[in-house]
Amino acid sequence: MADFEVLHKDTSSAARLGLLQTTHGQVEKLGGLHKFMAWDGPILTDSGGYQVFSLSPLTKIDDDGVEFASHVDGAKIYLNAEIATEIQNRLAVDIIMCFDQCAPFGVDAPQLEKAVERTILWAKRCKKAHSRPNQMLFAVVQGGTNPELRTHCAQKLVKTGFDGYAVGGLSVGEKHDDMIKTVRYTAPLLPTDKPRYLMGVGTPADIISAVTTGIDMFDCVLPTRNGRNAFAFTESGPLRLRNNSHINDTTPIEAGCDCYCCRNFSRGTLRHFFNSSEMLGPILVSVHNLTFYQRLMTKIRQAIKRNKLADLAKELNINY
Amino acid sequence: MADFEVLHKDTSSAARLGLLQTTHGQVEKLGGLHKFMAWDGPILTDSGGYQVFSLSPLTKIDDDGVEFASHVDGAKIYLNAEIATEIQNRLAVDIIMCFDQCAPFGVDAPQLEKAVERTILWAKRCKKAHSRPNQMLFAVVQGGTNPELRTHCAQKLVKTGFDGYAVGGLSVGEKHDDMIKTVRYTAPLLPTDKPRYLMGVGTPADIISAVTTGIDMFDCVLPTRNGRNAFAFTESGPLRLRNNSHINDTTPIEAGCDCYCCRNFSRGTLRHFFNSSEMLGPILVSVHNLTFYQRLMTKIRQAIKRNKLADLAKELNINY
Repeated sequence: MADFEVLHKDTSSAARLGLLQTTHGQVEKLGGLHKFMAWDGPILTDSGGYQVFSLSPLTKIDDDGVEFASHVDGAKIYLNAEIATEIQNRLAVDIIMCFDQCAPFGVDAPQLEKAVERTILWAKRCKKAHSRPNQMLFAVVQGGTNPELRTHCAQKLVKTGFDGYAVGGLSVGEKHDDMIKTVRYTAPLLPTDKPRYLMGVGTPADIISAVTTGIDMFDCVLPTRNGRNAFAFTESGPLRLRNNSHINDTTPIEAGCDCYCCRNFSRGTLRHFFNSSEMLGPILVSVHNLTFYQRLMTKIRQAIKRNKLADLAKELNINY
Repeated sequence: MADFEVLHKDTSSAARLGLLQTTHGQVEKLGGLHKFMAWDGPILTDSGGYQVFSLSPLTKIDDDGVEFASHVDGAKIYLNAEIATEIQNRLAVDIIMCFDQCAPFGVDAPQLEKAVERTILWAKRCKKAHSRPNQMLFAVVQGGTNPELRTHCAQKLVKTGFDGYAVGGLSVGEKHDDMIKTVRYTAPLLPTDKPRYLMGVGTPADIISAVTTGIDMFDCVLPTRNGRNAFAFTESGPLRLRNNSHINDTTPIEAGCDCYCCRNFSRGTLRHFFNSSEMLGPILVSVHNLTFYQRLMTKIRQAIKRNKLADLAKELNINY
């Protein structure tokens, strides 16, 4: 079950320093996801709700669940609260997510309301179907950029009671300011003694903004997807490593960075890897970007400890 | 300069155990090839001769050199003995190769003879042009599967004098037995106090056969090219990891193998990586295959030390 502790609260913002302890298991074929990935750290899986709506143009949805076409081979697949929970139970990961309906950006109010009602209903069914006590089950607050719907959804989910709460349905096309405003509004609606997770975010600046509102956890493809595309994060702003300006550059992506990429490879070498489709390029820049993000999170934790998070965003000068 | 020592001669075959010491340098842009590749071991570069003839359909060749079209952008490039040597000098690698003419398999006798004469002439010019005393310069014996031409070429090259000698122009389409027969014939023509190198070979069985004739060194794309294509080498024969038979297989590629791939990933996981185009698949199987080849070479060295190499080929039962 959830073992979450808030260790320190920043006095300069709503940010918290917390410790989340997880227990991971081993089940089913190929030894479960930890063994499969050769990853001994915590794993969180999503329910498939967001993916169904973002990847499949052919969905039939009702109050029970969703039928959609596989984006791989077009096969019809049915997913609902019980099935999504059972699959995640069987994957033996540490944290699983409730099956939710993520409404596309720009839908009208009745559609958004309907998606919120389903998300609340399905979360209850997920909790009931959840059969692995050593896995944490998080619920997802939906409601677009509508404060009333966010409030309603958060209150209902908190009443049902979960091991943690996510803010979902953002970074789907809304304006940056609306995203930040919605997080700032929604985070305080969630229990202080449970982890708060902002899904699919984001840039370094977005992360710092969200932490100041009291968000604890994030997931994002940016460090690796950008890394695969020759985009490196540095404290002085982005580097695009295919550019000719790097052709004879013997310096690393980021001076002083202790990652494997920066210790061994120059920008000139990395540029060559990308321009000759050598797979080492995407791998090395992903390694650097993940290190950059880990360093960012360490700085954030240290700033919270010193009650200085509000200053960090100004100091860092991150141009993303 | 060359520092080569034969440490032991196998009494059961012509195999030798040797030590080749190299000095690598640092020059020019991006710190030279060692820094560029983040590889601190010895590096051998080829002259480009073989690549010109195998990659480019549009070549104009005369006694001075070759004009060919870049396989990347079609640009006309000129290469001859002096240019190929200068490029390799500037790359600051440990061992460089003479610019040679590798005649395609099946050419008529006069053409093959012409290629041999050019190879002898160009090798002399390479030796004259060679300007880095800490790099070893190896010559390449050509002559197809013709014993007289091999003898002639070897004698002329040995008379000029090089730091090592390669057997080239094999594995280009000739029958397997003709390849082995040619190596068996050519190796004894080369000085015993210099390293002997068989270019572009090969399978485990080919390597063992060649070592028994007195060959010391090899280069080959097999471990990595096959690795990228889901083909794993094991002592019980090849594994093709895309096959459905591996779908729920929790065993590693090779039981007892201590490589990173076998310590962490099952055949079932690797199959999934290949079938979902995850780049970890090609990387991991290349890691395993290189480990397999290193283990093979270690076994070969140990067998030579014990004067038992003739037995090893029979014992190993390698089905390649």
